[in-house]
Parts: sequence; C-alpha cells; structure tokens
Amino acid sequence: MSDVLSRVIVWRGDALELLDQRGLPQRAERHLCHHASDVAEAIKNMVVRGAPAIGIAAAYAVVLAAQKIDWNTHRVDQWKEALEPDFARLNRARPTAVNLRWALQRMQTVEAGDARGLIDNLLQEADQIRLEEVEANAAMSAYGAALIAPNSTVITHCNTGTLATTGAGTALGVIRHAHREGKLHRVYAGETRPWLQGARLTAWELQQSGIDVRLMCDSAAASVMAREKVDWVIVGADRVTANGDAVNKIGTYSLAVLAKHHGAKVMVVAPQSTLDNNTPTGRDVPIEQRPGHEVTHWLQLSDSPTQGGHAPEGIAVENPAFDVTPRALIDVFVSETGVTHYHPESK
Amino acid sequence: MSDVLSRVIVWRGDALELLDQRGLPQRAERHLCHHASDVAEAIKNMVVRGAPAIGIAAAYAVVLAAQKIDWNTHRVDQWKEALEPDFARLNRARPTAVNLRWALQRMQTVEAGDARGLIDNLLQEADQIRLEEVEANAAMSAYGAALIAPNSTVITHCNTGTLATTGAGTALGVIRHAHREGKLHRVYAGETRPWLQGARLTAWELQQSGIDVRLMCDSAAASVMAREKVDWVIVGADRVTANGDAVNKIGTYSLAVLAKHHGAKVMVVAPQSTLDNNTPTGRDVPIEQRPGHEVTHWLQLSDSPTQGGHAPEGIAVENPAFDVTPRALIDVFVSETGVTHYHPESK
Repeated sequence: MSDVLSRVIVWRGDALELLDQRGLPQRAERHLCHHASDVAEAIKNMVVRGAPAIGIAAAYAVVLAAQKIDWNTHRVDQWKEALEPDFARLNRARPTAVNLRWALQRMQTVEAGDARGLIDNLLQEADQIRLEEVEANAAMSAYGAALIAPNSTVITHCNTGTLATTGAGTALGVIRHAHREGKLHRVYAGETRPWLQGARLTAWELQQSGIDVRLMCDSAAASVMAREKVDWVIVGADRVTANGDAVNKIGTYSLAVLAKHHGAKVMVVAPQSTLDNNTPTGRDVPIEQRPGHEVTHWLQLSDSPTQGGHAPEGIAVENPAFDVTPRALIDVFVSETGVTHYHPESK
Repeated sequence: MSDVLSRVIVWRGDALELLDQRGLPQRAERHLCHHASDVAEAIKNMVVRGAPAIGIAAAYAVVLAAQKIDWNTHRVDQWKEALEPDFARLNRARPTAVNLRWALQRMQTVEAGDARGLIDNLLQEADQIRLEEVEANAAMSAYGAALIAPNSTVITHCNTGTLATTGAGTALGVIRHAHREGKLHRVYAGETRPWLQGARLTAWELQQSGIDVRLMCDSAAASVMAREKVDWVIVGADRVTANGDAVNKIGTYSLAVLAKHHGAKVMVVAPQSTLDNNTPTGRDVPIEQRPGHEVTHWLQLSDSPTQGGHAPEGIAVENPAFDVTPRALIDVFVSETGVTHYHPESK
C-alpha cells in the first residue's frame, strides 16, 4: 500500500487524479477531476487536504480550466479574465489555508504568446510549485530534526505528511528525518477529530516509516504529558500571520497550552508559502466553521448526511476547523529558509 | 423519549433492567440482567456507566446473587462467603471508580436471621443507596449552582446527568439547577471521545432540559476559551483521593489546564461516596486502559470488533479511560455535604 503515497496528486494530461483521502487507509480510491470546478469541490469536500497539497491541486486546476478556454471568444492575453469564475471558485473552496491563494496568484503570473504556449507554461508552473514544495519539505525536515535531542518523545496532530504535501511532509517530514537520525523514542499521534486525519493518515504514514507511533484520542494528550516527558509538540500550519501566530487544525492551540504547562516545546513547521504577511494576527484570520454533521455523524463522506447520527437531532454544533496558536506559545518556527527561534531570550 | 430517563436502572423483582446507554439517544434498548455476572459484564461493557450508576447497579446485582444462593449448603450468616465470586467479579468490572467498591462494601454490612429476611434487607439497602444518590444529587445541585453568577458560560465533559446517577446528576445537576435559576448563558459539551458520552448523552439530556447547549469536539475547548469568556468548567469525578485530586473521564485534566490558562474556574461535583481517603493521591489510582478498538473502530458495541476500523491495522493505541486532575487545578469541590474551596487564599 506504500505506493499509494506516490499517487496523492497525479497529472493525467487532461485530468487531475487525486487520491481520495477520505477512505484511507482502508480504501485508496482515485478521484478524477476533469474541470477546475471538480478540483474546487474535491478541496471543499476533503478529497485532498493539507495546505500545501491544496495549493498544488489548485495550480493544476488552473491548467484544466485553461485547456477549456474557447479561443474564438478570448485573446490569449485575456486568459486570466476568461478564468475569473474558476479562480473565484477555487479561492472560495477553503478560506483558512493561505497556500491555496498563494498558488493561484502564482499561476496568474504566467504569460504566453499563444494558447498552446499558455497551457505549456501553466503546466510547467504547476509542476514547479509542486517541485518546490517537495524541496521545501526536505529542507524543513533537516532544519527541524537538527533541533531534536536523542531519545525524544513527540506529539503531533492532524496529518502533515506526504498526503498533505506530496513530499516528505512538514511536521511529519521533521519527524521522519529525526527518526532516520535515530533520535526518536516515540511519537504520539492525536486522532484529530472530527476527520480523524491523525488516526487514518498520520498513524498510517508513521507506521509505514517504521516509527514507534501510538494513536490516542485528542483529549489524552494532557495525561500523556503529565505521565511521561514529552519533549516536543511538532505541528504544521495552514497560515502564519505577520506577527507569527500560527493557524492550524483545531486542537493545535490546545496542545500548545498543554505543552507550556508541562514544559514541552512547540515547533511549527510550514513552508514560506504559508506565511501571510498581509494579515496582522491570528485573530484577523477567517476560521472556517464546517458543517455540524462532521461531528454528529460518523465520517460522513458526502455533503449531506445519509446515515443517522449519534448525537441528538437538532443539536447545535461548534465545529471550527482551525484554531489560532499565538506566537507566545510557539518556541520555533521552521521553514525551508531556516529556523526562527521566537523567544531566544527564554532559551 | 424523556421517560427514558426514568428507566436507567429498574428493579424487576428477579432481574435488573438496565437502559443500554450505548445506543442512546437513537435506540433506548432494555438490557435485562438475571445474574450478578450479567451486571458485571454490563458495567464492563458500558451498558451502564457513570460512577454513581455503576454503584447502584452493583448493589442490585448483590440482591440477584443472593436470590440464587443454595440455602441447603450455606447458612444465612455465611451469605457473604457464598457470594464471594460475585463480589470479586463485580469489584473487578471497572477499576477506577470507587463508588462501585463503596456500594459493594455497604451491601456487605447487611445482615438477617433468615434467607427471606436477607433478600428483603439487601433489596432495602440497594434501594437506600439509590435514594441517597438521588438526594445527594439534589443537594449538590443547589450548592454548586449557588456559586454560579448570572449569564455564565460553562464547559462540561462526559455525562454526569440522570444517565450517570439516576438522579438530577452531579455536574449536570449543578448545570440544570443554575439553568432553572436563569443563570446560564450557554453550555458547551465536549463530545468525549472515544465513547462520545458528551455527544450522545449529555447533549441529549441538556437538550431535553431546554438548555442552550453546543456540542463540540474535545479539542475545540481551548479555542472556545480563547474566543469567549468561559466562566466554569464543571465536571464530575470517578474518584477523589485523600489529597483532593480528582480522577475523572479522560480529557478532564486537559480542560483543567486550559481553564487555568484562560482564567476559567474548575468545579468538581461528586458525592461523598466518590471520596477515597485510603488512596493518598491521584498518582496512586489505577487508571483503566481500555481496548484500542474503542479508538480505532467506530463505537464498537461488542467486545470484539466486527466491522473494519478506520485506523491502520496493528496500530498501537493509548486509551486511558481516565486522567488525574491535581487539586492545584481545582477551584471548588462540591458534594452533598457542601462546598470546599480548595484555594480560598487565591479568591
């Protein structure tokens, strides 16, 4: 099943093949997108997830859209106008991660003298975005692992591995690298309700990598920290604001508060494409509230729940997909350009 | 469906009828126990749960066992010896909650001159244990609610209501009482993985009581505390040790740390039967590790998982059923005898 990890995002010439991550690790189904709108839906419905992977998928979606431009009614230098509805739809697919917008903006810088050249150049740019993410993963992994002492115990959250990036991963890249250096005692993976990315994806990726991983309910992290020495909480980010706050999967902030209480350090690992210097603080980031049925129904794979839920009917649900970890609770930020110690004075 | 709450534990003369809480709120099935061993299994398998309810069920289990003593081979004054295997089996059913042992010890004080009188006296004692729990609930509810200021926002965890006590509840009793006094702005109920007692039972009980309740994933509590003023975390306890540490559902300790960080107060509500003065601290309490399939498989109602799980096969799971909240993180302890302010100096 490990060849599955090479199929996260596959360009098929006239279609984008995504690995449907909702059925993993039991079912590795392909999800074929012929139109940019298919990709937007796939992002919205979590077929593909993880901030870097979403950005890459959106880049290829632009190629799909450009292939369908009617050149009888559009000039090549008007290609961006022609794709306006597609850009808008993709931009709206998920509001919190900034890589999506970053990748789309980068695709908009592409130019060409004719239609054929445009498609070629767009595809080259999408390939380049993907390649750079993979390279960034490798650099981050090395920078982050260098901070980890031998025999360390790590808690991670959500999935930040190959499934989220197509590369080695962000936080999971650091963990893999530290494992190869023989530095890890154990990794605890929080299951990451409601989508269970930790239980389904991270536990599986770590298991494939031969890492000693223990799966736990998210609420058990505090008791693990109280009982044994946890050295690091290592997580990714969907957006890092100008002041250094990190917006990431719901539960990350909780882990950061618990880490502070127990003397564990917090490492946020994310590519430069996750930085949003236009947004001052995490409080200014729109936090996606996802449908309540994700909490009340068991792993609902379609938009409208079909099976009965386990919670009482009509119950109000608070289902934020992300939370904000303030800079004050983060020890180091690792990207492909290096390590930033947020609080060097307190070292 | 609200009559369901009157059927949590029903004595049927020659059987104990339990409400099978595993299917709630969708299915309110009766679970009939004819033998003490049936009750022990029902406790172990979470048909009945909640420390006070477990104690009550165990008390009635002793009556069932006594009804089956062969008086040809045992003298009445040897009834405890005759039931030794039953007492042992019930005691072992769940290791953390102390009410179970407390109720069994209380049943062992019963004496009688003949077999008929013994059964009558045992039944009377079981009824009395139950009545006292209900009365204790009422007293706790009033004491706890008196501490709550108008317009308060509360987070609670697991289920501590009628389903856990047969009465108004412990933490949920306080919440109901405060609601009747018009003091509550809103209650957030953590879903309480892995058994989802919060999503299935607490959300439903609060909804039935007309209380403004929002269900959330356990990992969202921190983000709620960061965004709005949460006044109280109100929880029950399965055991309170001599030094005042509270052992309760996994996730409680996490909430207590988060409450401290955000300036919310922590109220532990539990009857005197939950006090264990023989155990010095929370660290000395055996924490039940439950099967991994509770985490890797969706609400597995049988002992052995039959459907496929969502996590990778063979994954190691950390599944402690309880955690320890040290006295230092608890503001007030409420029982039927009144309120103990743990840190009056810091008020």
